[in-house]
Amino acid sequence: MKNELPTIAITMGDPVGVGPEIVPKALSENSVVRCCRPVVYGCVERLRAGVKSTETELVFYEIPSIDDAYRVRGGIPVVDPSNLSADDLTWAQPTAACGTAMAGYLTAAIDDALDGRIDAIATAPINKYALKMAGIPFDGHTEILAHRTGTRNVAMMLAGDRLKVVLATIHIPLAQVPATLRTETIAEIIALTDHSLKTRFGIQSPRIAVAGLNPHAGEGGLFGNEEERIIEPAIDAAVRRGIDASGPHPPDTVFFTASRGACDVVIAMYHDQGLGPFKMIHFVDGVNTTLGLPIIRTSVDHGTAYDIAGTGQASARSMAAAVLMAAKQAGWQRRRQKR
Amino acid sequence: MKNELPTIAITMGDPVGVGPEIVPKALSENSVVRCCRPVVYGCVERLRAGVKSTETELVFYEIPSIDDAYRVRGGIPVVDPSNLSADDLTWAQPTAACGTAMAGYLTAAIDDALDGRIDAIATAPINKYALKMAGIPFDGHTEILAHRTGTRNVAMMLAGDRLKVVLATIHIPLAQVPATLRTETIAEIIALTDHSLKTRFGIQSPRIAVAGLNPHAGEGGLFGNEEERIIEPAIDAAVRRGIDASGPHPPDTVFFTASRGACDVVIAMYHDQGLGPFKMIHFVDGVNTTLGLPIIRTSVDHGTAYDIAGTGQASARSMAAAVLMAAKQAGWQRRRQKR
Repeated sequence: MKNELPTIAITMGDPVGVGPEIVPKALSENSVVRCCRPVVYGCVERLRAGVKSTETELVFYEIPSIDDAYRVRGGIPVVDPSNLSADDLTWAQPTAACGTAMAGYLTAAIDDALDGRIDAIATAPINKYALKMAGIPFDGHTEILAHRTGTRNVAMMLAGDRLKVVLATIHIPLAQVPATLRTETIAEIIALTDHSLKTRFGIQSPRIAVAGLNPHAGEGGLFGNEEERIIEPAIDAAVRRGIDASGPHPPDTVFFTASRGACDVVIAMYHDQGLGPFKMIHFVDGVNTTLGLPIIRTSVDHGTAYDIAGTGQASARSMAAAVLMAAKQAGWQRRRQKR
Repeated sequence: MKNELPTIAITMGDPVGVGPEIVPKALSENSVVRCCRPVVYGCVERLRAGVKSTETELVFYEIPSIDDAYRVRGGIPVVDPSNLSADDLTWAQPTAACGTAMAGYLTAAIDDALDGRIDAIATAPINKYALKMAGIPFDGHTEILAHRTGTRNVAMMLAGDRLKVVLATIHIPLAQVPATLRTETIAEIIALTDHSLKTRFGIQSPRIAVAGLNPHAGEGGLFGNEEERIIEPAIDAAVRRGIDASGPHPPDTVFFTASRGACDVVIAMYHDQGLGPFKMIHFVDGVNTTLGLPIIRTSVDHGTAYDIAGTGQASARSMAAAVLMAAKQAGWQRRRQKR
């Protein structure tokens, strides 16, 4: 049992976005098929519409619950907790029922992961306006995941083969970044990152580089003092806990040197500081993964792409990379638990 | 006369930094030798010390003025306006005399460029603390260049084969960026960039992408409104002047799409927004060039590197790239003026 492939739940996401298309596309790739036993949490009818538009050859079978997945042979099992009526749905036209359904796929997968029935979750994109239409009081995946698993501290990591970046702040105006940064939060994120790299990335002694906030990391206070006031104390606290953390490093060079192997991960102080450099080398194969949860969760790093939904054009590279990384993390976690 | 190679002044920069080493190293590269007639503005003794530490084979000859450059055969002419006493200088130990000398090299080159005796200037790094020791009231190259040429609006461009970035703000704390951005300044920088790409980069109809300030360019005001308040009116003003400007674009993707050919240049709102992505692909061959001056000026994009000065280890790739780009700009400008 222990040496079997991990079971990965793939949540289909928005029924009228590219999710129903990139799921069959990703599941048609050999590397994905070989790395895991996939189970889709979604709607069979929408997945079949996706199979049609993408001209893939996959067959999906609905099963009553995850425990029946083993019965499916020669196709992909689908758990559908939402019973979305798919008849009158149109690509790129979200409804309140879509919002309810996409949240339902996710919460069912979370519950099965918490129960140990699946090893990890890889999520296709959802639409926050559809969530709102459905009266769901959360902005996105991460908020739902944190709430449903009772997790206080989570962090977003963007991961690729050459570069991993964790964000200290995410979707806030740039003007609010300096005042939002707190020593305590940064120290927690460093510790969370250290723990995650050890338990889920197979890195025994993670080397963590922390970026500064200002040009040249403030150049000794000449261009801002958040480095000495806020960031350095967080690094010091981490080092005192035995973590191999360094910095604050100049934000314009730390991502390049990290991509060349100077460290295992960079903690970025804000969204574009980290994502700008990351996307230069991992635009198509970057994976978003949530650190701090009791369960493994990866995600595509793009949205519902309504402009091309239903055309079959959407690239499944990020979806495939998300499933592969979910499987890898499950493997590393299993090996770690065995020791 | 018109078809001759351009004459490029290379200012040696800080006499005790890596300048005297990267200049002979760069001038030993075939691509550099073939693209221009070089004249160094610097100190022959320090250049010889650099030749020794870098084990290059170059010979430097001091000449009384740029007008004597044509007399030099089988070596590199050196104009030395500073008469630095190099006897008791030590690598990485700047003195007030070094500050006076490095400013002297630059101002002499500027004057010769303004007189039309040279076609462009490529600068090796200087040290702002040495400038201060010498009582020179400027922070760096750009300030001296703007003052000496009587230029009000200049902009810094980082240029490489795959990506060109112009900065709307540079060396200020991140917290000051939002309040520093002005519609008028951004509009001027867009116009300056358009003019420079036409006159000095051989691009007849430049496509200019302007980055937003906030994550996802504000996502319709959800994460900040500087895009609609400040940046969009600047783009609109440029478009009304017939410039092909677009945006504001999401700052985490615009540099990637630009590097794939979606536009000719990106206007970044602040230092690390532009330089982080730029250095991911042009860390070693990026060139800094100043737009808006009546003369052509390129620069290495690194500092005096005191930690390795005198060891011969400094890479000359950025210096060589700066000379090559100075020569290219001189060629494009000449062709443009001929039409």
